Amino acid sequence: MLAKAITKYQKRVNTILNEHLSQLDGAAPDLKAAMLHGALLGGKRIRPFLVYSVGDMLGVNINALDKAAAAIECIHAYSLIHDDLPAMDNDALRRGQPTVHIAFNEANAILAGDALQTLAFEIITAPCNDLRPEQQLAMVRALAKASGYRGMCGGQAIDLSATDHRIDLDRLTELHNKKTGALISCAVELALIAADLPDEHYQLMMKYAQSLGLAFQVQDDILDITASTEELGKPQGSDEQSNKSTFPKLLGLDGAKACAEQLIQDALSALTKLPYNSQLIADFAHYIIERRL
Amino acid sequence: MLAKAITKYQKRVNTILNEHLSQLDGAAPDLKAAMLHGALLGGKRIRPFLVYSVGDMLGVNINALDKAAAAIECIHAYSLIHDDLPAMDNDALRRGQPTVHIAFNEANAILAGDALQTLAFEIITAPCNDLRPEQQLAMVRALAKASGYRGMCGGQAIDLSATDHRIDLDRLTELHNKKTGALISCAVELALIAADLPDEHYQLMMKYAQSLGLAFQVQDDILDITASTEELGKPQGSDEQSNKSTFPKLLGLDGAKACAEQLIQDALSALTKLPYNSQLIADFAHYIIERRL
Repeated sequence: MLAKAITKYQKRVNTILNEHLSQLDGAAPDLKAAMLHGALLGGKRIRPFLVYSVGDMLGVNINALDKAAAAIECIHAYSLIHDDLPAMDNDALRRGQPTVHIAFNEANAILAGDALQTLAFEIITAPCNDLRPEQQLAMVRALAKASGYRGMCGGQAIDLSATDHRIDLDRLTELHNKKTGALISCAVELALIAADLPDEHYQLMMKYAQSLGLAFQVQDDILDITASTEELGKPQGSDEQSNKSTFPKLLGLDGAKACAEQLIQDALSALTKLPYNSQLIADFAHYIIERRL
Repeated sequence: MLAKAITKYQKRVNTILNEHLSQLDGAAPDLKAAMLHGALLGGKRIRPFLVYSVGDMLGVNINALDKAAAAIECIHAYSLIHDDLPAMDNDALRRGQPTVHIAFNEANAILAGDALQTLAFEIITAPCNDLRPEQQLAMVRALAKASGYRGMCGGQAIDLSATDHRIDLDRLTELHNKKTGALISCAVELALIAADLPDEHYQLMMKYAQSLGLAFQVQDDILDITASTEELGKPQGSDEQSNKSTFPKLLGLDGAKACAEQLIQDALSALTKLPYNSQLIADFAHYIIERRL
């Protein structure tokens, strides 16, 4: 059931992203191609999955979720393009494909990231009969907060400044709560906004989201050690090579696994306090720490 | 009167930008400093001026314009930071100061641009008693459209691909309508949205805005030849050096001056068809082609 749902929502968001990107005129063909490369070449679509599956659980019409799902994936795609740049993580390979600055050039990669970020805000505010303007506005606010200085961008800045330094577990947790966790939490939050969820349920769902987001990153760190280059679609051991602090480095491999397991238990425990059929997103939480890519 | 209004609105938007940027926590100090450097070190504040002066002309409460003015300046600031990067225009000096990647480093410059773009969308959707949610949403849409592939980013991509090639006047006009014109037009449009302007007046105001935006760029090209490095705050003749197509190159210096003059006449002619006291924004149109920096 989980695998089927993942595939269904992957296809759905890819169709929407493809519609938006194909619609762009041909005035700047290299930029358009770079945006398509960055946004449509693979990807698990974790964030759209959360938008759709949480929204569906809460009875939201799927049409009301399409824009949020596509927009958050545009933000994610832009962040990967920029993170891969030579001045940042300097990665040549992602999802088994050349990164955008390798396939095109650096200028187009910078611009493609910029334009995908903008496109996210264009998509999420496009006229929509299934949401009230207040809900669309709240979605923009949530997406901007999660993506900016207080969220993803700030996390990436902390990450860069922490490279070649040993940082403690609190700082590493802050880093990843911002760099990865904020956008994963935001995916859940966008669905909560579409559902007009009452506040006490909101807090519990956000607890699920935050624990899940951090667990995702812990598992990423674990996979960097335990998975093969083929499974990862990028060189195995690249955290080690780039001298980054990771959860396995601070906790040991078994400690990191236990930490991820505990985070998933926290996420599941929040779900049990809610009156919804949360089987799918509970299964998804397990998948997050069992996945091999 | 014009000089006084320019100074008043400069101060007002700087105060708001400073409030938003100073509020950011200290979790990523280099990124925060890079954002402040990029957003607050000088700048004519042309776009905020247009938001405020057009809004004021149409009877909009100034409080309803603050967010739009600050947001559009964040977009402009981000675009300058990224345009200056080594992979783009590779400029070391702007407004007489080191550019962001020189003062900090390239990674922080990329992130500062990214986070300033996000901040624009955060600011423009912040809770606001002076605008209806529909108006705020329309503002986000306008800002995103003007900033993205169809606007500023697309224009910069055309600009990069046109470097070292001779392009014709139509293509150069398209380039600058997107790269510079779109955001200047958007500044006017944000004020029109705040004023709920009726459609026929809307079209005339947008005619003013579009002519003004292109005239601004033609004048920029002229100044690159006729102004000193000190006046410009960046090396004189840098267009020539980087082998870019410009209006003076295609039209001759006198031809470019005549073109700018005609564009301003077009802008003024649109204003005369409108029932507003447009003295200030008419003066501003003259200033655009008389300025020395």
